[in-house]
Order: sequence, then C-alpha cells, then structure tokens
Amino acid sequence: MEKSRKADFPVERVRHYLEPGPVVLVSSACDGERDIMTLGWHTVMEFSPSLVGCLISAGNHSFELVRRSGECVINLPTAAMVDTVIGIGNTHGDAIDKFDHFGLTAESSDRVAAPAIAECHAQFECRLVDDRLVTDRNFFVFEVIRARVAPEPAWPETLHYTGDGVFMISGRHIDRRQQFRPGML
Amino acid sequence: MEKSRKADFPVERVRHYLEPGPVVLVSSACDGERDIMTLGWHTVMEFSPSLVGCLISAGNHSFELVRRSGECVINLPTAAMVDTVIGIGNTHGDAIDKFDHFGLTAESSDRVAAPAIAECHAQFECRLVDDRLVTDRNFFVFEVIRARVAPEPAWPETLHYTGDGVFMISGRHIDRRQQFRPGML
Repeated sequence: MEKSRKADFPVERVRHYLEPGPVVLVSSACDGERDIMTLGWHTVMEFSPSLVGCLISAGNHSFELVRRSGECVINLPTAAMVDTVIGIGNTHGDAIDKFDHFGLTAESSDRVAAPAIAECHAQFECRLVDDRLVTDRNFFVFEVIRARVAPEPAWPETLHYTGDGVFMISGRHIDRRQQFRPGML
Repeated sequence: MEKSRKADFPVERVRHYLEPGPVVLVSSACDGERDIMTLGWHTVMEFSPSLVGCLISAGNHSFELVRRSGECVINLPTAAMVDTVIGIGNTHGDAIDKFDHFGLTAESSDRVAAPAIAECHAQFECRLVDDRLVTDRNFFVFEVIRARVAPEPAWPETLHYTGDGVFMISGRHIDRRQQFRPGML
C-alpha cells in the first residue's frame, strides 16, 4: 500500500468524509503502547466545534488507550484496503502491534500523541471532549482538532459495513445543490 | 410513490440497514401533532438491546415531539425518494404537515404512537432510553423495539449525504464472510 500525500482540510467539513458512514480505522497510543481498531459505529454530531461520536466497545484493546490518553486519530481507509480493514478487525492489539503486522506506517500527528496511518486517505486528529456515556455505553464524543486529507480523488471509494461479512462500496454521487435552501446545505 | 409491503425483521440486525450510514426520515407525534425530519447523523450503538444514537438538532420541529413523547420511527427511504428527502429537510414542520405536503402515508406503528412512513423501505420503531446528552448535545439514544422491512430488494439503493448538496448513492456489495473470524461478523 502506498502512503498518500495530504493537505490541510477544514475541521468543520469532516462530514464530507464521515457522514456517509464509512468504516474507519481508529489509531491510539498511551504509555508506550499503540493500537489500531476497525470501527463502523460513528456519527457526526456538530459542525463547529467539529464533533464526532464513536462507539468503541470495551472489549477492544484500543478502548483503554483512548480512554486514558483522551485522544485518537480517525483514519479513513479506501475500499482498496479492505483486506487490511478486515484483518485489523479480526485481531487483538494485546497480541500484536497492528502497524507492524499489517505493514502500515505510523505517522506523527500534529495535535495529538496518537499516530496516524499514512496509507489512509484522510486522518482526523481527535480529542475526547465528553465521556459521560463512556463507562456504561462505550460512547466517546470527540472533537476533531486537525484534519488532513489527500486532495485526490475528492470522492474516494469507501467501505460501509452491513454485518455478516458484507460491505457496501460507495457508489456514484449526485449533486442536488440547487434544490437546497441556502443554510440547509 | 408506492407503499412497500413489509415483513418483521429482527431488531438486533438493524445494522444491515443503518450501519452503512444512510439518510433516514424520522417520524414522530405528540399531543395531536406529527412531523417528519431528514436525518443523517446517527449510529448503531448496540446489537441487543438494539440501540441507535441520533443527533436531532433542537432547531427541528421534531425535536420537542420526540423529546416529549420519548418515541419515534426511523424510516429508511430509497434513493428514488431523493426529492422527498430533500424537501422534508428544507421545510419546517411548524408550517406544514409533512405527510400531507409530500403525499406520504402515515401508517400505524405497532409499539409506538409515532406513525411510520408506508412508502419507505424499512421502519424501525424506537423508544428513547437515554436522554443524558439530549439537553446539551441534542443526542438521543433509542432502543429499536420493532422492525419491519420490505423483503426485496435485500440491498435497496440508499442515500448518503456528504454536505454541499451532494449525495453518495450506495454502490455494489462485496461478500467477505470467509475472511472473518466467527464471532467477528
């Protein structure tokens, strides 16, 4: 897999990549440990501050790294990375270093200590801002404080999980801008 | 638009339809009022009980109906309903009855008082189970207590919003079941 060159991207526009519901890879680090997990349960929650809510099941090795550090990076893999995405979801960070095991490049982040994944299309550096639902629902509210995105393609093919081993691949895009009231875009 | 015939569907499997991130139509009712809103900010949160988290902005007429009744129906529109989906998102339930205005059929739900939308592909009857993040984040945690889905097609074309008036339409599906560890599906 190749690393992708990225440019800064406005954090208040992360919906462009996250709102359609792609599977993401969440990377984190704490006390010399690092991990990656596959995650499909997330939602945009606000434009500015740029908030994203994520369900990180407590059974994941990443859970404690994210909870203790209060940080993570949400990385967007393309559909070409499907085997890696499945592999990461099938393994446990207790036993292996997933960067090494899957040949992924840990890239320094700008605003958080958690490493980003250089091979992904986009990386969103996050800070935990609300942990009220963490303990009993595993639900983390993050603020995206820095976003870096590969400029091309504008619409990468993304993976959308449906359960039972089946992924939907993002399809065509339709522009209906003219049907929207200003302010409703 | 035609109504679709539906069959019961196991609530613990709603990820099949909701996890890929489609735009949904949320219908609700309270004290003789009813409304529909377009919503793209939601995430699956648990299999059983079947939990779905939704961001319903307080500016929506539906916000108070859902909050006060503690119920709603999450309806899944197909891509063919795109004009209706946009129209519902562009209008305010204060001024019009959206069922009448958009020619949609309000269907009695089984377990909640909120009406379902007969023309949608699937309807998920929900009860509010956690309102801790409602007041300051507009985030509702619902339990899906009843699901009814049109048996065909198994993979309806769905709309996935990306901002700026552009929708992604769900594409092809790939089956990678054999790559998953049992228990990780």
